[in-house]
Amino acid sequence: MNSASDSLSIIPITGIPEIRPDNDLVKIVAGAITKQNVSIIKGDIIVFAQKIVSKAEGRIVKLLEVRPSSFAIRIASELNKDPNIVETILGETRRIVKMDRGKSDTGRLIVETRTGITCANAGVDASNVSGGGMVTLLPLDPDDSAKRLVESFKNEFGIEIAVIITDTIGRPWRMGLTEIAIGCWGIKPLKDYRGQRDSKGYELNATIVAIADEIAGAAGLVMDKTGSTPVVIVRGFQYEHGGIGAKELIRKPEEDLFR
Amino acid sequence: MNSASDSLSIIPITGIPEIRPDNDLVKIVAGAITKQNVSIIKGDIIVFAQKIVSKAEGRIVKLLEVRPSSFAIRIASELNKDPNIVETILGETRRIVKMDRGKSDTGRLIVETRTGITCANAGVDASNVSGGGMVTLLPLDPDDSAKRLVESFKNEFGIEIAVIITDTIGRPWRMGLTEIAIGCWGIKPLKDYRGQRDSKGYELNATIVAIADEIAGAAGLVMDKTGSTPVVIVRGFQYEHGGIGAKELIRKPEEDLFR
Repeated sequence: MNSASDSLSIIPITGIPEIRPDNDLVKIVAGAITKQNVSIIKGDIIVFAQKIVSKAEGRIVKLLEVRPSSFAIRIASELNKDPNIVETILGETRRIVKMDRGKSDTGRLIVETRTGITCANAGVDASNVSGGGMVTLLPLDPDDSAKRLVESFKNEFGIEIAVIITDTIGRPWRMGLTEIAIGCWGIKPLKDYRGQRDSKGYELNATIVAIADEIAGAAGLVMDKTGSTPVVIVRGFQYEHGGIGAKELIRKPEEDLFR
Repeated sequence: MNSASDSLSIIPITGIPEIRPDNDLVKIVAGAITKQNVSIIKGDIIVFAQKIVSKAEGRIVKLLEVRPSSFAIRIASELNKDPNIVETILGETRRIVKMDRGKSDTGRLIVETRTGITCANAGVDASNVSGGGMVTLLPLDPDDSAKRLVESFKNEFGIEIAVIITDTIGRPWRMGLTEIAIGCWGIKPLKDYRGQRDSKGYELNATIVAIADEIAGAAGLVMDKTGSTPVVIVRGFQYEHGGIGAKELIRKPEEDLFR
């Protein structure tokens, strides 16, 4: 028989102040967790919205200081976007996957980021940034950011946790955005059921589950998009430790039918 | 200040026996929930893996009884698949999105199902089906299946809940499968933040979140792929009632950059 102990808890953490470059994110988040009368426990997965990690790492661009290339200016005109934003996007891009004027006022620019994540606008985002004319970039190496957060929790509080850093992205074929894992540490992002047998003795032959993306989605349910809940604890999930980060979630070009 | 009351619980339900055509799924699931000392409460979202819904609806095919067309036989040969399975897949297909031999032994057949879901093999699946040579099909109309489940819970127990029916699917660009919502009722599958302002007063202009898919992913974390946990309760999530089902999650062809 199953029991409540097999249940997962998805715990939103609020009361996190505006994060500024070089803030000690772990101390601030741990403080907010404590204020909420929640204790961090071993095995917790702490999920961070990309935005506050980017801010702590100083990944902020003042658009007025950007000098767009002639290519950026031309694309911006085609897509009805700000040339300085397009230049910023291109600076984060290793491959343009799709450009389209779309039916809305603003065109769409789907790219592969420098770390291989396929998303709109390379994750360059103007929402939830203090001061006008500023945008955030994704962390330079989100797995490394997650690793440093895991290590800080260990060093400062002696607690072993896992960290997932998420971003909100769109998908082909389906409406609506979902939260996905762009970085992680302390947890293997893929769970491999291959070789296990199902309840009827049939060998499962093609089931590798992207648990880090499912955890990101679960956290996304309580991550208010207005930015007031950028951290979520996922508690009670049994996961494999280790791995090399969320880079395992990126499909190799030669195995991808939809490049 | 936030509190534990804002947390979500993801509660796996086990002990559900093999489901057969015309079984009363709601009675069986309610029985398993009760045995687990969990009470269903108003507002619960009960998530069903597609497989048990399909079985209860008799959406099972005996492969030996299938007569493959010459097209199915040719494709099966190209993709190194069973012609009878290919015929079954084509019977559930309204459009082939991609056919590819792939690098593995078996080729890949990505299609749009009769209800517009883009997935491999039209959801035709041999795992967790009793007896050899049997496969399950997706429910004929998963939103309608969800609606009937919602109504049965109301009629039999007087409790208003929402239902999401999920399937495990792959995605372009990313490794690993995730659970998505193929049917739902009693909950709007998309949450629209447009027009709301973020914590800095910036108007959110492109944020519609596919919460039904995030709920499916959260449930997927405890839905063991061996089939022993086909039902999950998601408790504590504030959602909008109504909607027209998971068909809202299907992107219109003319708005899809990746058709």
